Amino acid sequence: MDTPSVQALGQRAKAAARSLATVSTVTKNTALQAIAAQLRADMDAILAANEQDVADARTNGLSAALIDRLRLTPERLQAIAADVEHVITLADPVGERFDVRMLPNGLHLHRRRVPIGVVGVIYESRPNVTVDVACLCLKTGNAVILRGGKETTRSNAVLVAAIRRALATAGLPDDAVQVITDPSRERVVELLRMDQYVDMIIPRGGAGLHQFCREHATIPVITGGVGVCHMFVDATANIEQALPVIHNAKVQRPSACNALDTLLVERVIAPQLLPRVAADLAAVGVELRADAEAFPLLSTAAPNIVPATASDWNTEFLALVLAVRVVDGLDEALEHIWRYSTGHSDAILTTDASAAARFIEEVDSAAVFVNASTRFNDGGQFGLGAEVAVSTQKTHARGPMALQELTTYKWVVEGNGHVRP
Amino acid sequence: MDTPSVQALGQRAKAAARSLATVSTVTKNTALQAIAAQLRADMDAILAANEQDVADARTNGLSAALIDRLRLTPERLQAIAADVEHVITLADPVGERFDVRMLPNGLHLHRRRVPIGVVGVIYESRPNVTVDVACLCLKTGNAVILRGGKETTRSNAVLVAAIRRALATAGLPDDAVQVITDPSRERVVELLRMDQYVDMIIPRGGAGLHQFCREHATIPVITGGVGVCHMFVDATANIEQALPVIHNAKVQRPSACNALDTLLVERVIAPQLLPRVAADLAAVGVELRADAEAFPLLSTAAPNIVPATASDWNTEFLALVLAVRVVDGLDEALEHIWRYSTGHSDAILTTDASAAARFIEEVDSAAVFVNASTRFNDGGQFGLGAEVAVSTQKTHARGPMALQELTTYKWVVEGNGHVRP
Repeated sequence: MDTPSVQALGQRAKAAARSLATVSTVTKNTALQAIAAQLRADMDAILAANEQDVADARTNGLSAALIDRLRLTPERLQAIAADVEHVITLADPVGERFDVRMLPNGLHLHRRRVPIGVVGVIYESRPNVTVDVACLCLKTGNAVILRGGKETTRSNAVLVAAIRRALATAGLPDDAVQVITDPSRERVVELLRMDQYVDMIIPRGGAGLHQFCREHATIPVITGGVGVCHMFVDATANIEQALPVIHNAKVQRPSACNALDTLLVERVIAPQLLPRVAADLAAVGVELRADAEAFPLLSTAAPNIVPATASDWNTEFLALVLAVRVVDGLDEALEHIWRYSTGHSDAILTTDASAAARFIEEVDSAAVFVNASTRFNDGGQFGLGAEVAVSTQKTHARGPMALQELTTYKWVVEGNGHVRP
Repeated sequence: MDTPSVQALGQRAKAAARSLATVSTVTKNTALQAIAAQLRADMDAILAANEQDVADARTNGLSAALIDRLRLTPERLQAIAADVEHVITLADPVGERFDVRMLPNGLHLHRRRVPIGVVGVIYESRPNVTVDVACLCLKTGNAVILRGGKETTRSNAVLVAAIRRALATAGLPDDAVQVITDPSRERVVELLRMDQYVDMIIPRGGAGLHQFCREHATIPVITGGVGVCHMFVDATANIEQALPVIHNAKVQRPSACNALDTLLVERVIAPQLLPRVAADLAAVGVELRADAEAFPLLSTAAPNIVPATASDWNTEFLALVLAVRVVDGLDEALEHIWRYSTGHSDAILTTDASAAARFIEEVDSAAVFVNASTRFNDGGQFGLGAEVAVSTQKTHARGPMALQELTTYKWVVEGNGHVRP
């Protein structure tokens, strides 16, 4: 493959999107099956390219965790191919009609779900994202321009080449899936400003990447992925239930954006709850950052505890660290969350229905939880079958973005010579 | 009123949005009624301020059409107050639950419609927009920061003062409606970059304003309002029906973004249709810009005709001007529309159901019309009861934006101590 300009990628993507928009679900599924087969057929080439990326990463001193994220193995590639086959089983939202009605003047009106068009996805170093995003875009009839991390350039080139071959064998335009392999940041800026060709940008990465995209884009950007997540335990909470939920929210996958960052505890329940939380989390090595009131209640059981500083309240730890604060009650908890939440995932543990109702009503986050772990904020866990990103902005989509959120709609108006009076 | 910084407006708006989000429909309607009453009570002051704006506009040599747009009269102000009362009758979308379900693990999940938060609206010189936008935002629980044209600074200040007084008497935060009165463009840029306070920007104006917002905003911008609109008349069309539809789409309000710009006619029907189109439109002073093939068919009946130039095909005329082209058939029409449409409103006139179906499927515009005038692309005409903008972008909303499009949703997850496996 030569290396076309970003403008050329945009032009080709727009042309590909035009044909993709009217492709049947059956054909899209055939192409997905072909992609899964091609990934398996090309396994040796993919693993060889990935091995070079891994070797470079080692030379460049990347951390073991990052190297593990970018490494492909036969098992991981088989899992990626199986994930492609899973997308086949998902319902295709394109073509769905809604708000169907006849107006008093006899005009027939409906909204029809259609692909967005061209989606640009900018992400970091996991090669599985390359395949996942390409397949979700294909299933929804969107062309995609991918820009992965520079550490995975070779892996992504080979993966995308496999996908493009499969698209061609299925009779679909291979320009439906394209990748920017030039690692320069200027190419990203070009992509972000190509509003004549690209309809939506999805960044997948840290706060810096999202900020960079917002700053430079002239195209709508789905921002999200950053979660300073809270859990408020009120006086009526069931402590036996609270302990495993807190544990799960913090410990089950601390590097995820829906992992718990700040635990707020109502004063009257703090003496019963906090020593047990401390013992439970100390056992798995969680570092606690406690306010003055929580500190003495935690410190007896938690060797790994420091006083919380002001910046802890707006930090997404992405690690086994938990900030803990004692509050007067629901009002102070709501005030804290209003001030510090990034609007991702916030939870209340309570047996008081009116407290739960107020929390749901007043916490302005993508997902609000009652007596459940924040870790459920995920497209798969919500039963959506997929997830291309988690949005924390207010427009287009909020929370997990699955297939439906990769579509828009058009209005269809059918008349019989109707003119506007 | 002092003149606070744009940052201060943002902070206040965000605080106001927090309380507004949980206000009942009854209270919001009471506030709307108070606004209508206050506008009537303040009529003399409003008309006096407006008279000064009009006098300045005359001094500055604004066109009669622009001056007419900014002028308020007792009748126009009564109509604006009546429009406020109309908003009371519209259904409040906030609080609506959808996608309600129980997951296999027993978690109860639903999406709940909520206000967006803080909306920034940047518009040109019509003072009625000030009241209209403020009331639609209020009804949907959003705080709004308004930035009208500099020609209407005094009118807007007095109108917003009336609205704010009414909000206060209804017990709502007056910072729910604020206006930037400083005419400097730097204030607009500040607004566009205030992503910590503002959730969505709606520009209402020409292509230049939309471009400016896209360039400078770090906040999601709803772009739209620019329509190069097409009508394709195929060989099977009913000519007696086609003539009034073409006439309506071009003539009923040529300054609107959904007015017809380019007429495409299938070759075999052109000799019957075009002389009659020419005669019909010549009678009301429409200038025709014809391609080489359409020219001789039009020129006998149309004194006001010139050859079309390349730039005519991507011009939104906003005037009694129509570009006309003869095409081979549906394929060439679709190709022309794909190339030149701004994705606003495009129509086919046909009696062939399969042609209509292909047109609906393949034309990627916010609204696609069959045997109806493009002038119907409007929130009121679509039965939505209101319209805050017409979007031609693909994310969040497409076509007329009414109350529902001024909302987002949150996910609500209710469990019983659920943890993620």
